[in-house]
Amino acid sequence: MSTLSAQPFSGNSGFNAHHSPMGAFFSFTCGNPGTQGGMACESGRPGTQDVFVGYKTGPAGKPGTLVCLPLFTGAKDTAASAFLVEQADKKSPTESRVVAYTAEQIKRYYGWASDRWVTPDLQLTIYTPFGSIPDPAKASAGEMREAIVPAVIVELTIDNTHSTEVKTGFFALQFSSPGVRVLDESLGDGRLGFAWRRDMGFVGEIVSDGASAPFGFCHFTPQAGLSEVNYRLHHLGAAPGIAFEVAPGHKRTLRLAIGCYLDGIVTTRLEGRYLYTRYFGSLADVLGYALDRYEQTVLRCVERDQELASSKLSADQQFLLAHSTRSYYGSTQLLEVGGQPFWIVNEGEYCMLNTLDLSVDHVFWELKHNPWLVRNLLENFVRFYSYRDQVKVPDGKGGFTLAPGGISFSHDMGVNNNFSPLTHSSYELTNLDGCFSHMTVEQVCNWTLMAGSYVTATNDLEWLTNRWPIVHDCLLSMQNRDHVDASKRTGVMQLDSSRCGIGAEITTYDSLDHSLAQSRNNLYIAVKCWATYLSLAMMFQKMGDTRHKEQALKSAGLAARTVTSKMTDAGFIPAVFEQGNPGCLSRILPAIEGLVYPLYWKQLGSEVATAALDDEGAFASMLSALERHTRTLLGDEGNRFPDGGLRLSSTSGNSWMSKIAIVQHVARKYYGIEKGDARQKAADAAHVKWQTQGDSTYWAMSDQIVNGVAQGSKYYPRCVTTVLWMDE
Amino acid sequence: MSTLSAQPFSGNSGFNAHHSPMGAFFSFTCGNPGTQGGMACESGRPGTQDVFVGYKTGPAGKPGTLVCLPLFTGAKDTAASAFLVEQADKKSPTESRVVAYTAEQIKRYYGWASDRWVTPDLQLTIYTPFGSIPDPAKASAGEMREAIVPAVIVELTIDNTHSTEVKTGFFALQFSSPGVRVLDESLGDGRLGFAWRRDMGFVGEIVSDGASAPFGFCHFTPQAGLSEVNYRLHHLGAAPGIAFEVAPGHKRTLRLAIGCYLDGIVTTRLEGRYLYTRYFGSLADVLGYALDRYEQTVLRCVERDQELASSKLSADQQFLLAHSTRSYYGSTQLLEVGGQPFWIVNEGEYCMLNTLDLSVDHVFWELKHNPWLVRNLLENFVRFYSYRDQVKVPDGKGGFTLAPGGISFSHDMGVNNNFSPLTHSSYELTNLDGCFSHMTVEQVCNWTLMAGSYVTATNDLEWLTNRWPIVHDCLLSMQNRDHVDASKRTGVMQLDSSRCGIGAEITTYDSLDHSLAQSRNNLYIAVKCWATYLSLAMMFQKMGDTRHKEQALKSAGLAARTVTSKMTDAGFIPAVFEQGNPGCLSRILPAIEGLVYPLYWKQLGSEVATAALDDEGAFASMLSALERHTRTLLGDEGNRFPDGGLRLSSTSGNSWMSKIAIVQHVARKYYGIEKGDARQKAADAAHVKWQTQGDSTYWAMSDQIVNGVAQGSKYYPRCVTTVLWMDE
Repeated sequence: MSTLSAQPFSGNSGFNAHHSPMGAFFSFTCGNPGTQGGMACESGRPGTQDVFVGYKTGPAGKPGTLVCLPLFTGAKDTAASAFLVEQADKKSPTESRVVAYTAEQIKRYYGWASDRWVTPDLQLTIYTPFGSIPDPAKASAGEMREAIVPAVIVELTIDNTHSTEVKTGFFALQFSSPGVRVLDESLGDGRLGFAWRRDMGFVGEIVSDGASAPFGFCHFTPQAGLSEVNYRLHHLGAAPGIAFEVAPGHKRTLRLAIGCYLDGIVTTRLEGRYLYTRYFGSLADVLGYALDRYEQTVLRCVERDQELASSKLSADQQFLLAHSTRSYYGSTQLLEVGGQPFWIVNEGEYCMLNTLDLSVDHVFWELKHNPWLVRNLLENFVRFYSYRDQVKVPDGKGGFTLAPGGISFSHDMGVNNNFSPLTHSSYELTNLDGCFSHMTVEQVCNWTLMAGSYVTATNDLEWLTNRWPIVHDCLLSMQNRDHVDASKRTGVMQLDSSRCGIGAEITTYDSLDHSLAQSRNNLYIAVKCWATYLSLAMMFQKMGDTRHKEQALKSAGLAARTVTSKMTDAGFIPAVFEQGNPGCLSRILPAIEGLVYPLYWKQLGSEVATAALDDEGAFASMLSALERHTRTLLGDEGNRFPDGGLRLSSTSGNSWMSKIAIVQHVARKYYGIEKGDARQKAADAAHVKWQTQGDSTYWAMSDQIVNGVAQGSKYYPRCVTTVLWMDE
Repeated sequence: MSTLSAQPFSGNSGFNAHHSPMGAFFSFTCGNPGTQGGMACESGRPGTQDVFVGYKTGPAGKPGTLVCLPLFTGAKDTAASAFLVEQADKKSPTESRVVAYTAEQIKRYYGWASDRWVTPDLQLTIYTPFGSIPDPAKASAGEMREAIVPAVIVELTIDNTHSTEVKTGFFALQFSSPGVRVLDESLGDGRLGFAWRRDMGFVGEIVSDGASAPFGFCHFTPQAGLSEVNYRLHHLGAAPGIAFEVAPGHKRTLRLAIGCYLDGIVTTRLEGRYLYTRYFGSLADVLGYALDRYEQTVLRCVERDQELASSKLSADQQFLLAHSTRSYYGSTQLLEVGGQPFWIVNEGEYCMLNTLDLSVDHVFWELKHNPWLVRNLLENFVRFYSYRDQVKVPDGKGGFTLAPGGISFSHDMGVNNNFSPLTHSSYELTNLDGCFSHMTVEQVCNWTLMAGSYVTATNDLEWLTNRWPIVHDCLLSMQNRDHVDASKRTGVMQLDSSRCGIGAEITTYDSLDHSLAQSRNNLYIAVKCWATYLSLAMMFQKMGDTRHKEQALKSAGLAARTVTSKMTDAGFIPAVFEQGNPGCLSRILPAIEGLVYPLYWKQLGSEVATAALDDEGAFASMLSALERHTRTLLGDEGNRFPDGGLRLSSTSGNSWMSKIAIVQHVARKYYGIEKGDARQKAADAAHVKWQTQGDSTYWAMSDQIVNGVAQGSKYYPRCVTTVLWMDE
């Protein structure tokens, strides 16, 4: 009980949580009333099982009413009759049925690493430990097993202390796809389980209490399985479960491990297998180990829960971070390719591999836990998904000529376990100027910002020295994308990549509006370019390369001057600098997104960053202009939805929670804007509501919110940017 | 063109065909208008792609109308507008759309190993070669590759000889599940392809003609892909295809290989991998090889087509055999377990592994092609899925005592790639007396009948000598199930297995009615017991074991006497011999199913069988009684549906096509009943209609037909019993 946060979740507590181990691209998702969920491997959406957790009054083998948490299809319809449960039980029904607890009967406690439902008769807790994944080059097999066991653990307690009749508690899943089997190999005494093909399954055991052993059942439905008198296991059944009788006056607890094991090669082109297959031999090994380590794992989760609960974050902020954390890990996939670890974060519902403009946002999270995974990403982008291009220089006659560009990195590494052709993303296409065009300059920024963050956090000079040529290439590339004619440079990207063909580069905000569509002369990109030059300067300084450091700082200065010069009398800087572009009228909060990097580096002790953020330093004017811009946008007429949530662009109803989190962090930490005031509280409350109303409740953490409801980027990893709030 | 049968299919030619290689549990299913189909691995139903095969007038990169075969969702709705195609093309539409040929515009030629659609502008042929699979213990890798390459081949010809505009022909699939990728590795010059994850894909090449190369496209829909001007390949697309331009006045032909490659272990408990992974290294290897061997494969298919076309079978019979053949191979799965081949036939939509009461029906097919696979099945049943039980002897007081039973075999070996616990099927349950009860005696019969058939067909005395103990056990088991008290034996099963608990054994006709529900004292089982004793006698004779041969013949004699004694004045033998049982009133055609075995053995030269079938021999009375029974049932008041199709039980609307085929064969070949007469023709026509109307058209070959429409046992392998007709 020690992991309970003081108060249950106060909003709509019926939402899916993406309960996931680290690096297994596996989830046991549940929580949304009335829809399917459960186990899923390598999927951009919740599983397709109905989850039945509850009890039946009386022993197994007789008809009766199953009282369950509302985690199955139709649970909302049965909930209306739930108030009849007590009467129904007393009537000795001749036919089994299922009723669900109503929302009012359930309290949900949503911690950082535990998710608990409490009703008058039962408690269900799902634990999702997370933390450091050791570098397999250095760690023991035992350490690796603990970190990357592809399973979550679950505890179900049935409280029958106030009843005079036996209750039969159960955990069961009803599968929609054929493949259920009994898992009866290598489990050890007192344990039993079921699996779905070779891929995933669950194993349970009763916390030792000397009473009757739990038993497995499998039938076409759980209600049939629990009332069947002739047999318990039908191998053709689709609804396996574990049940246990609880005598009147007693409480009993079932512990479960729910996990997966995908052996063999799972990706194409770069052929990878899960790193966990190096440390676990089978699904039974995974699930048995998870149960063996049950108590230690709970302790780790309790520590995480306490860490968050005792932080300065408000309850709403805590929810957003906890919810984000689960959906982050649900998208992670730690593979082994060619004998080397290969870290992948899948892009939520889209399942793109290592979308680089997400990676850069995850860096704050990963550097807290696993800096070697950031290095792994940087390396894999260089080795497999970097390219060199040319840039398109306008010829003044409506056409262009080509000039040397430089290095960049593809938007992603593929999609749905398929690595895309090397040096190419699955996303980017030629000859477009909207969604699916190239993000060439932004990906140079992203890689460079990640590299600078990694080096600053770890001081890994060996890596930096090895990759000096790439860092140097990034400087050249940034400069050429500004302009190949040094005299025309503004510090800000002006030239599109030849990879665009007749099209133009776009930003990561691909489905927002014109304000963040084009990269060229874009305010968001401009400040990001400035930060990128700082990152370069910081790395060159670490290498003692003063000449390039100065070059980088010079470009940063140009960028700052350009941005500052665009300030309007209305107190904001236009989203797009080009006259006549509709983006001129848009006011965008991501103007200050780029400040997050020096802010982060400063916290890590970087001199370059500290100097850069000095309000009497070289960039003071830009920083001041951006403050004015931000105050305008967050002021009375500001970028805000009617519910108080933040609007990234004044001209769009599209907002991304992960990016809002960054903007809030910069505004609060650097500018002291909306720090704990009523507006912050209203915004946080709105952002919680966005995740816990309408369809959002099905999709766990979702990033792209249109007018308050998840419309895209669902089931998404990126909102772990909320971890920045811990540093305020 | 040489493979065209003389006449196109004359009925409703819009039906799915289960185009499948041998032993890969893979299919490229298509043909049913307006529904999805396409590629599927290890699935009990058609794939979930829309199949687009056709042409667009004009080059790629422009909008236009796609004219397709109706192999996609909604094709039936677009077909109405198809008559406007010519006009539409002339209008240079600004938006692409898809229209489907109407049924009237398509002729379909359905051969034994080729399936061809012909329209005024195109021809599509899918080739599915089949034949012998060599024993890998003896065959070369080259022979194995040819036999078990997990791919089918396809030929698409676009005829533009009568047009003045270029046409763009294409083959494309629109996937419903994420995972499409370009297959750009190891294909060789002039070939291109796409895949779905690691599992399956297609590769194509143009028959060399010096004109422009084919090109790949991938977009969200094929119409978008073929009109897109900016790019051809989007790796996020779900609709990949291969297209080729055809100049006015020309014809061009695209050859395709469509196949799968599942590496690694695919089953549980008994861990197996596909045997083809021993001979092929990758999906690209499979598809490349299939194209390399294209012409030889077509020749093999042409031979098969000609073999069937030149047989004595009527067009309706030819269709039923050809349709059955495809659905048989679509369910086959040749694995390697523990270094040894392991042959599995999955049970159609139910995906049970090696359902033994299907295996015995497949034996006529497999012994023609691959006797070693029958031995493989016999061995695997002995090693993994045989058991010993007791029998229940009624105690005269409504209860029973237990007595020694003997060997039997489980109903199946598992389900959905999951091997069930050894010695247990996934199907059979305790304490039942209907569906899902045990089929203990019938499975003793089935194994023994298969063994006798195998030995008679191959004269493999080495195997028989090794397995003499098992054959002997089968005799004991049959006798004990008749009665443990020798004085009470009737030759017919009277005692249920202890595995039934308080329930009773059932027959393979588990969802028919009471006439074929219980095994005990059942006419169908009685004649099957008789045949089983003959099989035992035949095997004992081969081993020179006269004593046991005589024992077996004695039991056969008892069985025959029992059956004969049940003849009623109405000229039929009741389905169930027990007074008061509702089955007493049922008249069942499967009474003569058991005769098929001696008929088959006699054809193979068996002395025992020849003597047994002698109409002046030891069993003449029973054979005569069964003839009278059959003539009654097939007479004017007979077991017939209003459409002329056969009704297996006079009291049920359920009929199984595979079993009808056996009954027809015995009636015609042994008794000369309905041999080529109007009744046979009407029955055959009805049976064709059953497969080509209503929902049956989606499910390819289906076995269980209720009042003329497939209701169960869909997508089913067993109808290859129709191959018996070739021997009449």
